[in-house]
Amino acid sequence: MNPTPLLPNHLAGRWQHGQGKGTPLFDPVRGTELVRVSSQGLDLAEGFRFAREQGGTALRALSYGQRAALLSEIVKILQANREAYHEIATANSGTVAKDSAVDIDGGIFTLGYYAKQGAALGDARFLLDGERIRMGKDPLFQAQHILTPTRGVALFINAFNFPSWGLWEKAAPALLSGVPVIVKPATSTAWLTQRMVQDVIDANILPTGALSIVCGSSTGLMDQLEPFDVVSFTGSAETGRIIRSHPAVAQRSVRCNIEADSVNSALLDPAATADSEAFNLLVSEVVREMTVKSGQKCTAIRRVFVPRALYDAAAQAIAAQLASMTVGDPRNEVVRMGSLVSRAQHDAVLAGIAHLKTEAEVLFDGSQVALVDADPAVAACVAPTLLGSRQPADARVLHEVEVFGPVATLMAYDGIEQAYELVRRGEGSLVMSVYSADPAFIAQTALELGSSHGRIHAVSPDVARLHSGHGNVMPMSLHGGPGRAGGGEELGGLRALGFYHRRSAVQASTVALDRWGGCAVPLSL
Amino acid sequence: MNPTPLLPNHLAGRWQHGQGKGTPLFDPVRGTELVRVSSQGLDLAEGFRFAREQGGTALRALSYGQRAALLSEIVKILQANREAYHEIATANSGTVAKDSAVDIDGGIFTLGYYAKQGAALGDARFLLDGERIRMGKDPLFQAQHILTPTRGVALFINAFNFPSWGLWEKAAPALLSGVPVIVKPATSTAWLTQRMVQDVIDANILPTGALSIVCGSSTGLMDQLEPFDVVSFTGSAETGRIIRSHPAVAQRSVRCNIEADSVNSALLDPAATADSEAFNLLVSEVVREMTVKSGQKCTAIRRVFVPRALYDAAAQAIAAQLASMTVGDPRNEVVRMGSLVSRAQHDAVLAGIAHLKTEAEVLFDGSQVALVDADPAVAACVAPTLLGSRQPADARVLHEVEVFGPVATLMAYDGIEQAYELVRRGEGSLVMSVYSADPAFIAQTALELGSSHGRIHAVSPDVARLHSGHGNVMPMSLHGGPGRAGGGEELGGLRALGFYHRRSAVQASTVALDRWGGCAVPLSL
Repeated sequence: MNPTPLLPNHLAGRWQHGQGKGTPLFDPVRGTELVRVSSQGLDLAEGFRFAREQGGTALRALSYGQRAALLSEIVKILQANREAYHEIATANSGTVAKDSAVDIDGGIFTLGYYAKQGAALGDARFLLDGERIRMGKDPLFQAQHILTPTRGVALFINAFNFPSWGLWEKAAPALLSGVPVIVKPATSTAWLTQRMVQDVIDANILPTGALSIVCGSSTGLMDQLEPFDVVSFTGSAETGRIIRSHPAVAQRSVRCNIEADSVNSALLDPAATADSEAFNLLVSEVVREMTVKSGQKCTAIRRVFVPRALYDAAAQAIAAQLASMTVGDPRNEVVRMGSLVSRAQHDAVLAGIAHLKTEAEVLFDGSQVALVDADPAVAACVAPTLLGSRQPADARVLHEVEVFGPVATLMAYDGIEQAYELVRRGEGSLVMSVYSADPAFIAQTALELGSSHGRIHAVSPDVARLHSGHGNVMPMSLHGGPGRAGGGEELGGLRALGFYHRRSAVQASTVALDRWGGCAVPLSL
Repeated sequence: MNPTPLLPNHLAGRWQHGQGKGTPLFDPVRGTELVRVSSQGLDLAEGFRFAREQGGTALRALSYGQRAALLSEIVKILQANREAYHEIATANSGTVAKDSAVDIDGGIFTLGYYAKQGAALGDARFLLDGERIRMGKDPLFQAQHILTPTRGVALFINAFNFPSWGLWEKAAPALLSGVPVIVKPATSTAWLTQRMVQDVIDANILPTGALSIVCGSSTGLMDQLEPFDVVSFTGSAETGRIIRSHPAVAQRSVRCNIEADSVNSALLDPAATADSEAFNLLVSEVVREMTVKSGQKCTAIRRVFVPRALYDAAAQAIAAQLASMTVGDPRNEVVRMGSLVSRAQHDAVLAGIAHLKTEAEVLFDGSQVALVDADPAVAACVAPTLLGSRQPADARVLHEVEVFGPVATLMAYDGIEQAYELVRRGEGSLVMSVYSADPAFIAQTALELGSSHGRIHAVSPDVARLHSGHGNVMPMSLHGGPGRAGGGEELGGLRALGFYHRRSAVQASTVALDRWGGCAVPLSL
């Protein structure tokens, strides 16, 4: 048998193969090897220096509008190759077409969004943050805050669940800001990221050094970071801890954005009844969140809080919908839910369910579901499992452990104050959703739980067919949460540019401040 | 001899003496013991919980306007006790009255500034960040970003050079945001901080638990921090590294602001001549920065860049002004510069000068200056020393090591591109100042050096009598810098509130968003 292809890395402006046999990537349904990756022996110092000097200088020489136009060109190239990306996603991520689209089209949509937002910044080269402020009685000496692009690289260490969106939701604001990107995708699903980068590089859209990719081991990447670089990480809390403790961050103050674990919640209005529309909206959304991408979304609902009187009704309604789910090979048209990304994740999710079960009852047992066209001994398929707790105040693991698969836990609460308290036991989440027909209750919940969540998503009957979904990350809204969720902030429209810019107060004569003229645009980040 | 008084801590809403004999605080000029502090045996867990639950709840129950009114009350109490504070500063910090005022009146001014800014926020309870954004074609479902106060405590671990300003520049925005404060002042000068807190507590201005102070060892403080707490540190890079690597930050994502070392620069326009006003303005500002508070300011000028042709002229002009400086006991009216805060700092500064001298020549030798009313074997007095380097491109230590005393190094540059490059060798600074009669040069320098500095201070002849000074931190301007400076952001007007608020995207029906009505005020941070 011939060895599978070794994917090249792009670093220092050229394609480079890593040394050795490399690490294989697999089809998580069939277990077959697809391609291999290696970062061994790469001259990382050269690559980072090249990106910083060649890529950064070239990007900063452009206006926001010119860089936005580059994003539009990337959108075109990616759209032209969508079919190839879907094939890679089916093979390497084991996702059904609808789930592959969440990643692929989600990434392209986000790029397009920033292309449009960036175009509006036009010829500007830097941003004016707020108004001029008089420093004394005489108006001649004033302070003006400005935001200028950082003179460094942006290193992305990405997660396995979004090889496309995970790259572009970070790269779009970085490139728009004028900061070159080096991406290290998670190894198990690196193929799609690598292919997209390859298409963009081959199309010769970006200045040389503006976009680099290293596939395989992340060893040595953090060591390259200098004070004006930034690092953005999405993944486990444990890796997040290692990154934040690395001398680059702890000692050299490299700016660091982390998205880690998140035990997100859904909350049903205490006034809801089992036949209310709010109840039905909660049930559908929980089922959707458990099954889309097999629950491999950092925003997925993990804890479902309902008034005690509705616990049994909710359990039955959710279980009934889960029972109709077909799980297996995404190539079979009857399959609605594919596999997890790897057998390792399959094993981790089963272990996680066992861990949660020490504090929960089983309301729907996925382990009894037969797989379609998939060998349970080989495939990374896990059917959805609904757990439940009637005494969530006594639980610890249920509020702390994120099982990264099609798993959620239903919880009964007594009174809204207890519900708020239980939601906060997640110690910081990316998102919580509230289901209610009462606008006042929604408004109040957002204020009560805002400070522990990056996003509050409210589903009321009037927006039943309009809302964007609990787990969907829209580029105009903030993505990130405090505490356990990592404390990061991404997206949120042009707010995302803040991470790649440095804020400075310029205190000067207004005669000097006037000299900037048209090369700046007002934008507070 | 009777032991000196042991200052009490204020924690869990009551005055508590630490156990043991305590750590003595000294008069740095006379070497006499003044008071003692101890945090030994305090129940820190109780204190943090009390602040979080009692202090936080009470503060959040108030509007911004009500909390701003509390800041005004604090201003009144502090103004009424200014004389006592000056006495403590003279005794414990060894500063002349003018330098004591920088700390004492600087703190009161900053409090007053936030009282005024906060009053403008009126009855609001939270902040609207940006406009509502449509999530789709139908305008009924929209996203609104909000900023709500974090439900935790703010721990301040402060530096020895600003026992007053260092407390209030942090506490003003924290309290205005509705977040309770626990301050741990640097031990050597903790007396003034303790006395100010005592006056405020005794005046019964703030809700119980809103302001606490722990004097002495910081052991165990970081261990108390939970995900929604924040920590702000000003001090050495090494302690900054320890704080950032602590599990509270690295693991629990406690938000962390750090101000560490900073090798700040002053830059003279290459077009300047030795008889130009820009030249004279640079010389006066360098002398002022070297001598105010004996150079113990994190913003002080450490590196002075002049065109090679003006190196000798600048050396002579600065040295001539330094020669007239009188150094010694601040109680003697002829003394213009007092002492460093401690004999330990005295020794560290002398060692630092020796370190810099491995790469620099001596242009003005402070070690030859006779002290006024001070015993060189006892007093922590160090006279100003000007060093110089004709080849700063070959230096390493000069760009990396901050000697925290009356010390600066003059450096010759060849061409403006080299000058920019040399300034950036500081790898991130709090502030740089530029001296020029050319508005275009100033505008260009701000853009070139903005991304590596938190503040750019431009001194041109038209603002010679108006500008606020290189080293003075004004509350309306950002304070903080990237890289070596710690990567923090403080002040900058109401921007400072951002550190104490959490941003969330609320995605909901406009019917629900409308319910907030008057309890919010638009403010993007």
